[in-house]
Amino acid sequence: MPSDFEDRVRKTGLRLYDIAEKSKPSLFRKDYWTGKVMDVSMKNDAFKQEMFRFVDVFPYLTTPESVARHIQEYFCRPDQHFPKAMQWGLSHVTPDSMTARMAAKSISKNITTMGKQFITGATIDEAAEVLKKARDAEGVAWTVKILKEAVTSTQEEEEFLDGQINLIERYSEIVTNWPALGTGEIGGLDWGFTPQVNISLMASCLYSQYLTKSCAMDYAIDRAKERLRPIYRKAQQLGAYVMMDMEHLPARRFTLELFKGINDESEFRDWPHNGIAYQAYMKDAEPLLADLVKWAKTGGHDFGMRLIKGAFWDEEMVLANLYNYPVPVFTNKHETDASFERCAHTVLKSHRHMQLKCGSHNIRSVAYVIETARKLGVPEDRLEFQMLHGMAENLRNAWTKHDLRLRLYAPVGEIVPGMAYLVRRLLENTSSESFLRQSFVDGAAREAMLRDPASLAKDSPQTESGTPADSEYGETGPFSNEPPIEWDVATHAAFAAALENTKSSFPRHVRPVVNGVPTEGGKTLMSTDPNMPERVVAEVACADAETVEFAVAAANTAFTEWAVTPAEKRAAYLFKAAGRVRAKRHDLAALLVYEGGKNWTEAQADLNETVDFLEFYGREMIRLDKPRTASERPGESSRLGYLPRGVGGVIAPWNFALPISVGMASAAIVTGNTVVYKPASQTPAIGQAVHDIFSSVYLPNGVFNFVPGPGEEIGNALVTHKDVAFTVFTGSRQVGLGIIEKSGPTPEDAQQVKHVIAEMGGKNAIIIDSDADIDAAVGPIIQSVFGYMGQKCSAASRLIVLAENHDKFVSRFKHAVETLVFGPAEDSRSDLGAVIDAEAKAKIETYVDIGNTDGQLLTRGANAEGPGHFVRPAVFTDISPDSRLAQEEIFGPVVCIIKVDDFEEALQVANGTPYALTGGVFSRSPANIERACREFLVGSLYINRGTTGAMMKRHPFGGFKMSGVGSKAMGQYYLPQFMFTRTIVENTFRSGFAPMEAATD
Amino acid sequence: MPSDFEDRVRKTGLRLYDIAEKSKPSLFRKDYWTGKVMDVSMKNDAFKQEMFRFVDVFPYLTTPESVARHIQEYFCRPDQHFPKAMQWGLSHVTPDSMTARMAAKSISKNITTMGKQFITGATIDEAAEVLKKARDAEGVAWTVKILKEAVTSTQEEEEFLDGQINLIERYSEIVTNWPALGTGEIGGLDWGFTPQVNISLMASCLYSQYLTKSCAMDYAIDRAKERLRPIYRKAQQLGAYVMMDMEHLPARRFTLELFKGINDESEFRDWPHNGIAYQAYMKDAEPLLADLVKWAKTGGHDFGMRLIKGAFWDEEMVLANLYNYPVPVFTNKHETDASFERCAHTVLKSHRHMQLKCGSHNIRSVAYVIETARKLGVPEDRLEFQMLHGMAENLRNAWTKHDLRLRLYAPVGEIVPGMAYLVRRLLENTSSESFLRQSFVDGAAREAMLRDPASLAKDSPQTESGTPADSEYGETGPFSNEPPIEWDVATHAAFAAALENTKSSFPRHVRPVVNGVPTEGGKTLMSTDPNMPERVVAEVACADAETVEFAVAAANTAFTEWAVTPAEKRAAYLFKAAGRVRAKRHDLAALLVYEGGKNWTEAQADLNETVDFLEFYGREMIRLDKPRTASERPGESSRLGYLPRGVGGVIAPWNFALPISVGMASAAIVTGNTVVYKPASQTPAIGQAVHDIFSSVYLPNGVFNFVPGPGEEIGNALVTHKDVAFTVFTGSRQVGLGIIEKSGPTPEDAQQVKHVIAEMGGKNAIIIDSDADIDAAVGPIIQSVFGYMGQKCSAASRLIVLAENHDKFVSRFKHAVETLVFGPAEDSRSDLGAVIDAEAKAKIETYVDIGNTDGQLLTRGANAEGPGHFVRPAVFTDISPDSRLAQEEIFGPVVCIIKVDDFEEALQVANGTPYALTGGVFSRSPANIERACREFLVGSLYINRGTTGAMMKRHPFGGFKMSGVGSKAMGQYYLPQFMFTRTIVENTFRSGFAPMEAATD
Repeated sequence: MPSDFEDRVRKTGLRLYDIAEKSKPSLFRKDYWTGKVMDVSMKNDAFKQEMFRFVDVFPYLTTPESVARHIQEYFCRPDQHFPKAMQWGLSHVTPDSMTARMAAKSISKNITTMGKQFITGATIDEAAEVLKKARDAEGVAWTVKILKEAVTSTQEEEEFLDGQINLIERYSEIVTNWPALGTGEIGGLDWGFTPQVNISLMASCLYSQYLTKSCAMDYAIDRAKERLRPIYRKAQQLGAYVMMDMEHLPARRFTLELFKGINDESEFRDWPHNGIAYQAYMKDAEPLLADLVKWAKTGGHDFGMRLIKGAFWDEEMVLANLYNYPVPVFTNKHETDASFERCAHTVLKSHRHMQLKCGSHNIRSVAYVIETARKLGVPEDRLEFQMLHGMAENLRNAWTKHDLRLRLYAPVGEIVPGMAYLVRRLLENTSSESFLRQSFVDGAAREAMLRDPASLAKDSPQTESGTPADSEYGETGPFSNEPPIEWDVATHAAFAAALENTKSSFPRHVRPVVNGVPTEGGKTLMSTDPNMPERVVAEVACADAETVEFAVAAANTAFTEWAVTPAEKRAAYLFKAAGRVRAKRHDLAALLVYEGGKNWTEAQADLNETVDFLEFYGREMIRLDKPRTASERPGESSRLGYLPRGVGGVIAPWNFALPISVGMASAAIVTGNTVVYKPASQTPAIGQAVHDIFSSVYLPNGVFNFVPGPGEEIGNALVTHKDVAFTVFTGSRQVGLGIIEKSGPTPEDAQQVKHVIAEMGGKNAIIIDSDADIDAAVGPIIQSVFGYMGQKCSAASRLIVLAENHDKFVSRFKHAVETLVFGPAEDSRSDLGAVIDAEAKAKIETYVDIGNTDGQLLTRGANAEGPGHFVRPAVFTDISPDSRLAQEEIFGPVVCIIKVDDFEEALQVANGTPYALTGGVFSRSPANIERACREFLVGSLYINRGTTGAMMKRHPFGGFKMSGVGSKAMGQYYLPQFMFTRTIVENTFRSGFAPMEAATD
Repeated sequence: MPSDFEDRVRKTGLRLYDIAEKSKPSLFRKDYWTGKVMDVSMKNDAFKQEMFRFVDVFPYLTTPESVARHIQEYFCRPDQHFPKAMQWGLSHVTPDSMTARMAAKSISKNITTMGKQFITGATIDEAAEVLKKARDAEGVAWTVKILKEAVTSTQEEEEFLDGQINLIERYSEIVTNWPALGTGEIGGLDWGFTPQVNISLMASCLYSQYLTKSCAMDYAIDRAKERLRPIYRKAQQLGAYVMMDMEHLPARRFTLELFKGINDESEFRDWPHNGIAYQAYMKDAEPLLADLVKWAKTGGHDFGMRLIKGAFWDEEMVLANLYNYPVPVFTNKHETDASFERCAHTVLKSHRHMQLKCGSHNIRSVAYVIETARKLGVPEDRLEFQMLHGMAENLRNAWTKHDLRLRLYAPVGEIVPGMAYLVRRLLENTSSESFLRQSFVDGAAREAMLRDPASLAKDSPQTESGTPADSEYGETGPFSNEPPIEWDVATHAAFAAALENTKSSFPRHVRPVVNGVPTEGGKTLMSTDPNMPERVVAEVACADAETVEFAVAAANTAFTEWAVTPAEKRAAYLFKAAGRVRAKRHDLAALLVYEGGKNWTEAQADLNETVDFLEFYGREMIRLDKPRTASERPGESSRLGYLPRGVGGVIAPWNFALPISVGMASAAIVTGNTVVYKPASQTPAIGQAVHDIFSSVYLPNGVFNFVPGPGEEIGNALVTHKDVAFTVFTGSRQVGLGIIEKSGPTPEDAQQVKHVIAEMGGKNAIIIDSDADIDAAVGPIIQSVFGYMGQKCSAASRLIVLAENHDKFVSRFKHAVETLVFGPAEDSRSDLGAVIDAEAKAKIETYVDIGNTDGQLLTRGANAEGPGHFVRPAVFTDISPDSRLAQEEIFGPVVCIIKVDDFEEALQVANGTPYALTGGVFSRSPANIERACREFLVGSLYINRGTTGAMMKRHPFGGFKMSGVGSKAMGQYYLPQFMFTRTIVENTFRSGFAPMEAATD
């Protein structure tokens, strides 16, 4: 850009500043309650966090007592030292005291006022007054957005659709007599080119399952289009404008494809009154915009683009960090601003096809757009400015005084769905990088704020924070979880091809491999596709007791050398195996689909977990191999080291046949033990794949031996063998307890006492507190209960709901269950499918019968027709905690809902089974969360998230009571149990000499 | 001191410097091999350490190949980067190559030369030449000291005695025709007042057991006097002078009392020609000297005092640090110098009774003594100066030129016993605080070196390093081991009284205590004193299965509250209990003597361990209670916490009835479990004492329940009870395996799978390498084998000796065993006594029979007569590793010696039993030590020290194979096994808000 352009931008900016600086945004005025709160929040991060969390839960609090109690929990804890004024006199009273209730009422009022700052009204009619007033007084237009709780079911999609249709209809009625802006014509187009009625909506409300259907994108878009068409038609019919909001990254592709798809439909192709929001803070904002421009030009489209910087920065950072993909947003504010300008330039240049809706509160950005539009000669009707209601009255004034066409974003709705919106706005305003805060609170110099962000970005370039280097693993580098598969056109096609390919390899021939040599098997066993039992996946020539004898002998022989192979070298085999798994991920995942009955998502997730096990345990062994010092003093060194146990029997389950097999075996191997591995009878082909992984990296013969076959015979021979030092098992309680019992006696001539590591069952509960955020709870709970048809030991099978939230939760949950799609696992659309075999199906149906006797059937969800071992999901209410349904592990898509009066009872019920594996709590009460952390007796407690899908290293996994024995898998205490420890105490003092200085003559 | 005195000291010092500075001590002359080595040592601490260690082992190396191999192991390791010249071309050759052997020979020659620097000759006749030459040329006198390996047996005491007598006789013959110094009179007194024949000796050589007899000091001194009298008589008879050296602190009281005692005997009372060395670096040097002066004046004694600064500084620091008592020496060099001057002043003032032998190489110290003597008018015959041969020829010159009466210390002996002496001298000279090094190598300014040390000390006061604060335990403060009891007159009397007192409490009445209430017992059981079986220690009203039922119920009820009692509060009970144990230590130790048959030393050591368990586990729980973070990221917090298991059965052994009971029970309790405790049948009164300790600190009722009685009935009921979550056991393999087997089945209705922590037996071996320092090995091995009659699971019962060292070791070991004192435990003199009961005795004698059949009896040690269950120690040689004697745990004073050809075979034999508990290696080969660290399969490997007496925190203890299951006691991984872990994963992301800064507008 030439510098005279920069100068014009600067001058325009200064003019805008001149007007704006005459007043301060009301949000920051400390004579108001909101202003005070904002003030403290900006100064005190801890307070800000508690405040915004309190605001988040506030709408759920139905009584003054409950409000008072939450205030105490958020602001009056002994570990906090907040300003007295911000404890509202509640630190030393009981929540039901008169004082407390009075304070609660007053605070409630203030928060409601705070809400009104941003939310124009509970209904369009209520909002209309605000809209009209501002139109008349300031000449601003509006876009109306209905605030909505998360849409979690087909029923809620329908409600949403109805709401949008109603909005367009009612809003159109309201504006009938309003003069158009610019022209004054009654009922005419504002400024002569754009409808008075303008609504904004979120694509995610159109199809509740868009997120879990990322592997079936076409299907998801089709579903969404079905909802969107009526809205577009209504808008066309009544002359309204529809703007699609942009959400977080996981929704972006869905939203963009949906937008393009519907605009490609002939009935909407020529309709200019629709648009889409676009976020400039994405690192790929520019290339993606280029594609969009190309599409628009090629198709001859005309649509609006609301260019914004983006409001999900926190969330993008969090998600990228948690799931370990590159941070998708600029982390340097100047980069974001520069990207905004570049995108604006592109859109303005493409003004024949795109109307720019400039959505920024940043004077520099706006000045840039004004001057660029002028330079490029953009016609008036191709550019408007947008701003959020309640954000910056002084800028609004500056924009309109400057004759910019300004549209305000008007959220309409109740406070409950509005709170998430409110919190986002508060966050934006209090961020230290906020233009408003910097300019009008912190008093930054205008000139500095008006500088070209591109040059500023050059001065302070983007830095990638990324994962901090874990020094614990030394040169091997930090551990990071494998990033989840990104379902785009290419990966979708690759996996579809792998499914085809894999199918053609059936039936596979599986037989034992001992000491690297395939051996003759005995009887034959078949494995079949649970979703299509006629499909034989594998024919197994089974191992028998004699094979086990050979295998143990081979493992015992191999142990001698393997035990003293350096840890780094052993770990290197695991890292190589990880690479192998990555390279073959689609083929392996396809096998999981056919033999395990996993759907696309679950199958791919298993692959990630498999890689993670190998990468993590390899690193852990390297860490553990460094001897730890117990004490180091002059004259004595004392350290602890590890040594392997011997031959281990690895007995694997069918439900996570690949990752758990690899996890258990690799842990045993990397710690220097040798292994005899028996896969589950249901999944021998996957077992063979496990063997192939290890043999493909040339693990020395005898270190890993493969003995497929029936559990009773092989398992027994293995567990009780005198030379088997330990058994590591994952499976049912019954089999697990049997192994433990059989491992009790020490055989004559055994070299050691047998050791057992066993992961067994669970009867996992999730507590839904009275203040739980149901929006945030339904999705994760559905996943926890019905993921892989509930065939996970971590699956939730009891939902304990506080009475206050019960009916609301039950209703939303029911509809969500009914929204799930039933079908064979190989169909990318399927949420639910077959259970593992006919026996499992029969057992599950028995429990459904019990449920029908002991309680009320709420729903059995979708219909399920087909040849597979299909079981329809079943949800029961009115179940007593003592019912077999609430006590026994079902291992299927059956869940009971138990209503309780208070949190105490919830914990009692939760703890009242023989199991202690996983547990969940959805709550926004700090006190209840803390109590659950103390009293909820489970191996893994999950707070405000689902109870399945534990991630390596971050979520060490394992239970107690009847759920298992041993240290948690996936964590840093897992490997040590595969080893003995040795203390080495060395007297380093010799002949009067220790490594220290003497003090004699 | 007036400053004109200081000025005179300064001037005298400068005069001495003038003479001294004309040459450099030969030790530091880099044109010699020794000088080069000293030079590199002073610059490179790592090299110095390896060099001195190599010098230490060198005399044991009998072949050039072995020398070459050791040089490679010490100087050519890949982790070292020593100067090429200091690798002597050995880094890339095999030790048996011609090059290597040539280099080895050359180095051997150089080291021998280095030895000759300090050692005047191998015999007195060889030394006489050196002595005579210096007398004639320089006018210096000599004191001759026979270098001796450590004296480890009566036989060696006798050899030592003979050696001293011979020395005096032969030395006297040699000097017959020597002219006396000063007078020139043939055979006359040197300088007219002191014998020409002057010897120095160490008190520790007079009685080999002085160290282990610190609780029987009178006895030890009597034994030493029996050896000393003939020496004194011979000296009187032949007109010689006898000086007693001073050793490390543990020998000081013995040496001083011996010296005073013999001087109080009428035949020596008036004999002035004996003296004692006195160390000024001890913090209590002054008060103790005052006592000595008082004694001398009162008794009218006349004796010499060789005042030195002290040569055991390293060792004193190490010992104080390892056993956790205050550092006894000054750690600031100036303080030591100042203390020397004050002591010298005192001795000079007392010159009527004490002749000062000023033993310093420090010019300032000597100048101070010269001027003080002058000032106090000390007669010539009351002052002489002493110096070490080989240390500082230039000072020697200065002293004599200054007309000081100088005596040189002349070590005489072979290189093997001389190496420890040599290393001490090398250390002194290379110390950065050495006067010689500072003055003649580092070139310190004379004036600075001559300043008054008292004023210098004031400028840089003494700092106590002490144990660094362990932040791991936060406010509770660091853990430190209880310091061992110091046996002085007061503690001896106190314990003797406690023994009397305790005896009078017998028979004690023991009965079960459940839920804080003593209950009716069933059948009666007696415990008796193993050393006097007629003495009934306790009458027990035994618990039965019904009592167990009550006790488990009480513990189960108490668990609910105890489990949620804060960890710090639980730990506080342990700390209180520790205080209680400290307060009652003598009474408790007395009970161990009578019921457990422990001797004084072992009984008191048990008390220390008891206190340590309480203090350490209390702190450990506080440490573990802080939740550990598995990961903390924006949006997610993941942490691990602990929770207790439930009711634990604690089944205790009789051998460490107090500490192990307290250790197991306190671990279970502090982790939040409740306990039913069954003591061993042999030690119910000690069990009751354990109960009393916990009840005296008001542990809530039901947390600790006491059920004394027979193992079969009670143990069984306890282990298999459905409400007993875990058993923690220490005892025999047979019982332990039984408990593990019985804990296998999970009872109907049990809340969890049973967990067992079991410490069982051992068949522990010590390897004595071909280069092992036998001097340093015999004592610790005797203690490891015969401590508490071998009734420790850690006791060594196999000695695997490399052929090269076999005969020498066997001979010294035999004599050492025969020196041990047999007698009842209550007699402070007893090393050995009864085994626990008649059954044990019978079993041990069976193994003696096996030994007689399978091998050669080496010795059965001392005689053992009396009513106790006495078993004489038994040592067998020529035992095959497969013999039952070498395979089965005997748990008594029986040991077999197995001869092996090489280290590989040694390890094979060591690993060739079903046990893996403790093991030891005595070796000075870095490569063999490293190999043992990798390949010796034991829970606790001890290098160059005994295998028993593990210390809390520093020596985590526990074995594998048939030696036990579970994590090591005394270490940081012990408590976690008493608990389950809980992962708590919290989604901290709410409504777009995570605790981080946003980057939007």
